[in-house]
Amino acid sequence: MTVQPAISERDLRRATMCQLLHWLAVERVQPQALAETYLEAIERLNPSLNAYVSLSSAMLQEQALAAQHRRRDGVIGRLDGIPIALKDNFDVAGWPTSAGLAGRREPVVEDAHVVARLRASGAVLVGKTNMDEGALGAVTDNPHFGATHNPHRHGYTAGGSSGGAAAAVAAGLAAAAVGSDSLGSVRIPASYCGVYALKPTHGEISARGMVPAARRLDTVGLLARSADDLTVLLQVLAGYDADDARSRRRRVALSPPDWEPGRLRAGFLPNLAAVGVHRDVVDVFQAALDKWPRELGERRTVDFDDWDFARTRRAGLLLMEAEMLGTFAADLADTGHRASEHFRRLLSYAAGKSAADYAAADRVLDAATLKMRRLFAQIDVLVMPTTPQGAFPLDGPVPDSQADLTSFASLAGCPAVNIPMGYLPDGMPIGLQLVGARGSDLRLLELASVCAATLDVEPAFPAIS
Amino acid sequence: MTVQPAISERDLRRATMCQLLHWLAVERVQPQALAETYLEAIERLNPSLNAYVSLSSAMLQEQALAAQHRRRDGVIGRLDGIPIALKDNFDVAGWPTSAGLAGRREPVVEDAHVVARLRASGAVLVGKTNMDEGALGAVTDNPHFGATHNPHRHGYTAGGSSGGAAAAVAAGLAAAAVGSDSLGSVRIPASYCGVYALKPTHGEISARGMVPAARRLDTVGLLARSADDLTVLLQVLAGYDADDARSRRRRVALSPPDWEPGRLRAGFLPNLAAVGVHRDVVDVFQAALDKWPRELGERRTVDFDDWDFARTRRAGLLLMEAEMLGTFAADLADTGHRASEHFRRLLSYAAGKSAADYAAADRVLDAATLKMRRLFAQIDVLVMPTTPQGAFPLDGPVPDSQADLTSFASLAGCPAVNIPMGYLPDGMPIGLQLVGARGSDLRLLELASVCAATLDVEPAFPAIS
Repeated sequence: MTVQPAISERDLRRATMCQLLHWLAVERVQPQALAETYLEAIERLNPSLNAYVSLSSAMLQEQALAAQHRRRDGVIGRLDGIPIALKDNFDVAGWPTSAGLAGRREPVVEDAHVVARLRASGAVLVGKTNMDEGALGAVTDNPHFGATHNPHRHGYTAGGSSGGAAAAVAAGLAAAAVGSDSLGSVRIPASYCGVYALKPTHGEISARGMVPAARRLDTVGLLARSADDLTVLLQVLAGYDADDARSRRRRVALSPPDWEPGRLRAGFLPNLAAVGVHRDVVDVFQAALDKWPRELGERRTVDFDDWDFARTRRAGLLLMEAEMLGTFAADLADTGHRASEHFRRLLSYAAGKSAADYAAADRVLDAATLKMRRLFAQIDVLVMPTTPQGAFPLDGPVPDSQADLTSFASLAGCPAVNIPMGYLPDGMPIGLQLVGARGSDLRLLELASVCAATLDVEPAFPAIS
Repeated sequence: MTVQPAISERDLRRATMCQLLHWLAVERVQPQALAETYLEAIERLNPSLNAYVSLSSAMLQEQALAAQHRRRDGVIGRLDGIPIALKDNFDVAGWPTSAGLAGRREPVVEDAHVVARLRASGAVLVGKTNMDEGALGAVTDNPHFGATHNPHRHGYTAGGSSGGAAAAVAAGLAAAAVGSDSLGSVRIPASYCGVYALKPTHGEISARGMVPAARRLDTVGLLARSADDLTVLLQVLAGYDADDARSRRRRVALSPPDWEPGRLRAGFLPNLAAVGVHRDVVDVFQAALDKWPRELGERRTVDFDDWDFARTRRAGLLLMEAEMLGTFAADLADTGHRASEHFRRLLSYAAGKSAADYAAADRVLDAATLKMRRLFAQIDVLVMPTTPQGAFPLDGPVPDSQADLTSFASLAGCPAVNIPMGYLPDGMPIGLQLVGARGSDLRLLELASVCAATLDVEPAFPAIS
């Protein structure tokens, strides 16, 4: 038996989670060494990147040691030894949950459902990542915790609201991350940072122990360095939770993908510029489509003339903001600085809205459901850019349209995946979004895997090392 | 072959739908004769009862003739020739849909989903029945169409909002009726009028073409003179409708009842007086429970100390009223008298509520879902009176609590059945409510059938003939 050379730090940090699981299985790397590699990189890079807002190296090392022992004893979980980051709106017993607000220092008692599942699978929880205040926004320039920088360029946004999580995965400071996505909060930062993300079917992963934004839209979102990693994470985390009112039993268990090669019907919008997609993004998208594998099947133009993407986003925002007035009532009532002026201003918009306005916004959800059902009677997957623009400078203006392409799947309750599709002329990554019918999460992920292989985008591993 | 004597008018009008289907099948009665019997009774009794607000004898006769021809040709539907009433908030092509408001005279173009299904099953649509204005209320004392009287006593309410439908079924002016139930609107009038009613699992019967009250609570409710009739109606009407955003595919098809005799766990509230049930109603309920068949299984006391029934009803009302501000915007904007001052006053309450109030009320729905899940892990069926009181005089005060016992199932999305359980000291009927877990509609109906046989309440057929 030949002794294999040690794996480089760079390779450990850019590897997919599945690759790491393999190296752990064949003992090319030990859980403790893997954790140390990530920890050292975090200590070196996080001060400028600001992806993590809380982290305990002692706790990380303790978990890695336990993983080491489980490997030795041969009784391991599905993600045993994998360093995973958590957005700071998930409860971890013994830690406070900031949700991006200040002054929330009280440690919580119970793990969120997904945190308990991650622990049971042997994952090593690295730390909690930065986010927009209250998960409202898509920039991760947090007034209390500072801005997270895009790993591809300092001074640029990582997107949000799961910006810290996406930056950590892109920069090789976590093998994967769990965030939340109510209108695009894992897909937008994944698009800007060049990583993979899944917003699952609504109700597919329990949101218990996650600070709610809008319960009808809230999903637990996943971020990783490959589509296959997302599939593994989904299978570990998905399932019915009787204690989450929005958790749903599936009609059938998550089944293997059911599309037939050569028979796939992929839908495309006829005119991306008309829905506000920047010219540079359209160009990268067109170049990606030129590589679209013909073996998959047919390309169809779908009609979205009857759909107002901006209205969809605005309706979703009203639902979020109105609910946040209750969720963050204590923070808002505090005369100190637990909530920023910016956050208060955003919510004061909702405070001026009536119950009838809420009911009207809620009606857009029904319209999205019907649109989605009609759409997926004609096509199997909807293909479009994830964001109308790439990452922008933190000190520049924030576009309104960031969530315009992601919010449709949120309101319709559909699964959606971001995969990197290339780079914009300024060198920043940009993502492709696949949207499927409710419950088609696994099919979508397999398709994402095929598309990723076809697009063959140089894996995003920013030059911060 | 002996010639059977003709069936009396009284027997045709008090018979269950299943009995009528049998008589039609063996040709003891013909569809035209049956329709004429009902039509004559309506012409005689409706002027004082005011159950129907619109009816076309020509259209009724035309349908009966078509049913007669189908019988002759031997190609019949499941409900062929059965006279069925419709609450006036369902669209019937060519007729206006008042929803209890004035001035809505424009005939609609398309049948509601359930109307189309009824037609396809061969049912004879008798006419449209009176209701509370906008389906908001439980008295059916309509400012535009007058009060429906309780068939058991003139001058007493029939309940509401499907009061006309319940009165028509109780008085033998329809074999069954289709109403709507958002917080108790078929169960309350069924309790007051002594008939059977089902509020199905939310999303089980398409509500397309029904004027919405609160989409998250709205169900198509059924009224009949036996539990078995409700089962037949449910099977004709239930099913997924892609064009109704709230319609849901079942995980499994409606299956035969799955409770094991002797193993049923029935749950009871420990103290009905404490939740506002009148003493007389408690007495009738206790007498009914004394007959509860021990062969069914176990009786358990369930904990509802953590549940505020009145708060549930108030939350539901806010959702309804806020949504109605949109649904009836054109009526409210009309400077004429399309909406009464009373209705405007009710909705002005919601107009003063904020989006955050709506979000808070919406949260009660999640709480109801969780309560329901925990409840039905311990028991198979919840048993309680349907209403805290019986029918009251139309000229007296209206109790606040009418929907207190019915709204829990509405917010939780559960099926619930009303069966007559006896008579109050004043001679008015009162109903027993069975509530089951989502999707257990058929089990609940079979149980209702067993309970009805055990209770053996003298069939309610009021002395108006």
